[in-house]
Amino acid sequence: NSRLPMYATHQVGVAGAVLDETNGQVLVVQDRNKTQNAWKFPGGLSDPGEDIGDTAVREVLEETGIHSEFKSLLSIRQQHNHPGAFGNSDMYIICRLKPLSFNISFCNQECLKCEWMDLGELAKTKEATLITSRIANLLLYGYREGFDKIDLAARTFPAVYSGLFYKLYHRKLPETYENMPNLE
Amino acid sequence: NSRLPMYATHQVGVAGAVLDETNGQVLVVQDRNKTQNAWKFPGGLSDPGEDIGDTAVREVLEETGIHSEFKSLLSIRQQHNHPGAFGNSDMYIICRLKPLSFNISFCNQECLKCEWMDLGELAKTKEATLITSRIANLLLYGYREGFDKIDLAARTFPAVYSGLFYKLYHRKLPETYENMPNLE
Repeated sequence: NSRLPMYATHQVGVAGAVLDETNGQVLVVQDRNKTQNAWKFPGGLSDPGEDIGDTAVREVLEETGIHSEFKSLLSIRQQHNHPGAFGNSDMYIICRLKPLSFNISFCNQECLKCEWMDLGELAKTKEATLITSRIANLLLYGYREGFDKIDLAARTFPAVYSGLFYKLYHRKLPETYENMPNLE
Repeated sequence: NSRLPMYATHQVGVAGAVLDETNGQVLVVQDRNKTQNAWKFPGGLSDPGEDIGDTAVREVLEETGIHSEFKSLLSIRQQHNHPGAFGNSDMYIICRLKPLSFNISFCNQECLKCEWMDLGELAKTKEATLITSRIANLLLYGYREGFDKIDLAARTFPAVYSGLFYKLYHRKLPETYENMPNLE
């Protein structure tokens, strides 16, 4: 039956945009072993069974030494025939994180540079990947006009058949919609 | 090197919430072969190399006979140890679609029932999966107060190294942020 799922088709990568809301600075890295040096957000592939936000926090810590916590989901990229995915597709998810520490201690194996950079500067520089520039603009919009403009909130729900839980991400609902009677 | 991606970890499923903006009705189905009959949005697994919105449109057509077009991405669910995913994780994405036809001709192999239902009714009924109720509330919020409150827009960008393209989904940026000079 061709309708049966035979195997997983996507790898999932997660990047963490760690934004210090007190001064508008965001944590960026440059990878080693790239011909063109470009700023990007730290991140990497999800481990099996790992939630999106946990991947972001773990990868940021491993690459930069910065402790952080998940705030929201900002963006998703889907790319097919991704060169790093062995013919599979790649789902790349960008989260907004809040820093819990500030002293950078970056991993020399992965990173060439790591800095706290002003959002406005990151949005303007040519030395950033296209997706990083886009997300810098999105973050700037949120930083200036309220993060409620850009955030997808996460909520955890029980999966009835398995006893397990899942996470659902979408725009935050106003209270009047949250409290509809069927959701009690 | 344990940092290398060895295989894909996620299957990707997509559901289409086909909403008729002229009357607030949304297309819902009930699966065959379920012990509990519950309304849900039509959908299914992505084919290899298929974009999210294309999966939604294709699955809606196959299950219900309704032609539609992609409008936005609304929500993402991540679930591990999904019973239908052979130990892999499941990424389930819900899109908002606009109907291009209205006469239902549903697939009896997959569906028991298929109807256009008022959003308010779907949000209230106990006969819907939890995620369907949540998304019905989200759609109701968008229908009443503007879809810009709930939508993630899609844009296509070139992947520099491969000559291929990818799709990026995030909240729509106001023009002033869209037109920043580095994005020309």
